[in-house]
Amino acid sequence: MAGDGLKLLGMWASPLALRIEWALKLKGIEYEYVDEDLNNKSERLLKYNPIHKKIPVLLHGDKPVPESLIILEYIDETWKENYPLLPEDPYERAMARFWAKYNDDKLCPALFGTFSKTGEEKVKAAKEAQETLKPLEELLKEKRFFGGQTIGYLDIAFGWMAIWLPLVEEILGVTFVDESTLPLLHAWCQEFPNIPLVKERLPPREKLVPKLKAFRESVVSSS
Amino acid sequence: MAGDGLKLLGMWASPLALRIEWALKLKGIEYEYVDEDLNNKSERLLKYNPIHKKIPVLLHGDKPVPESLIILEYIDETWKENYPLLPEDPYERAMARFWAKYNDDKLCPALFGTFSKTGEEKVKAAKEAQETLKPLEELLKEKRFFGGQTIGYLDIAFGWMAIWLPLVEEILGVTFVDESTLPLLHAWCQEFPNIPLVKERLPPREKLVPKLKAFRESVVSSS
Repeated sequence: MAGDGLKLLGMWASPLALRIEWALKLKGIEYEYVDEDLNNKSERLLKYNPIHKKIPVLLHGDKPVPESLIILEYIDETWKENYPLLPEDPYERAMARFWAKYNDDKLCPALFGTFSKTGEEKVKAAKEAQETLKPLEELLKEKRFFGGQTIGYLDIAFGWMAIWLPLVEEILGVTFVDESTLPLLHAWCQEFPNIPLVKERLPPREKLVPKLKAFRESVVSSS
Repeated sequence: MAGDGLKLLGMWASPLALRIEWALKLKGIEYEYVDEDLNNKSERLLKYNPIHKKIPVLLHGDKPVPESLIILEYIDETWKENYPLLPEDPYERAMARFWAKYNDDKLCPALFGTFSKTGEEKVKAAKEAQETLKPLEELLKEKRFFGGQTIGYLDIAFGWMAIWLPLVEEILGVTFVDESTLPLLHAWCQEFPNIPLVKERLPPREKLVPKLKAFRESVVSSS
């Protein structure tokens, strides 16, 4: 389906931009992807997201929508008929929004917070971060995906974990998603990257690992 | 309209809990208000918001919905017909969500951030906080309220400013919403507390001022 000149301002290594690509692919909406250099922000990015100056931004004609979770809702409301992302029931919708916000406000900062730590501090921070994952195991009970039998809004929101987290684990030498204590989440992390539309757009490992390692070095040395 | 055993866990001085009361009153939904002692959290609060242990929580039967902006969307989606809070158009909805999130993530922390400062530091923090208010002036152009001719979701999200901010200004001796530079926002701040359903449930000034002063003293002494 034509997306009326839909353009996504993203950055190849950004899990937040990938959320939008997954959503558009699930809906079958065509879009143009524009990679932004965040070290040298374009006039375009500054014009369309003057408040936060961040990607992702979805341009629908000349209307910019910033912030990944807000973009997901915009996509879901604009193309209602194709593959609904959020559940239909208001309470289930509220819970999906609650956990997506939990991901952005608590879980992601806790997991990436371990990145600047070394030695004993790293072990302590990793344990705290593991605690933030526990509620997710509950959410997956009797379900294949967070969305149920198929992926939805919450799988998209949590998707970064299945792709970035194994690399973070490898670089830090820490296991966050332990198969014995979080078996359902572990299984989901195995399955999500193998979904065809996710698989076809994974950031290349050979570029992502050095980028994450360089990020790790920069945050360790400045903390 | 009966709210099916709707119960709001709040705290009398919380602007976030008031958001929910305004929304329910606009919709004409009956509810029971339960005041929580946040210094001695009830079993009820810990049971219904085990993740954040914070108010507000809306209990719909035995289903808890936490977090004020998520509750507002839940109320709007559950009682769709009475007084819609969010605009109908998907782009306007996205913008309303964007600015409500801006309020919670940027504006409110910047304004309350001045509270722990004194002397030159306070002046500097206040100037930075004033900058965060400027985009709101744009939003009010050719409008009476953020929602248009009547109040809506975004007026509810920003509502705290019209009630708490004048008291914060008084206690700090700082003007945030200056009539000459932010005339539309200043006029909105005058009008919002006079809307009957807002006026009838204002937190009592004689209780709120000492509470804010005590808070100011505690954050100044610990910073």
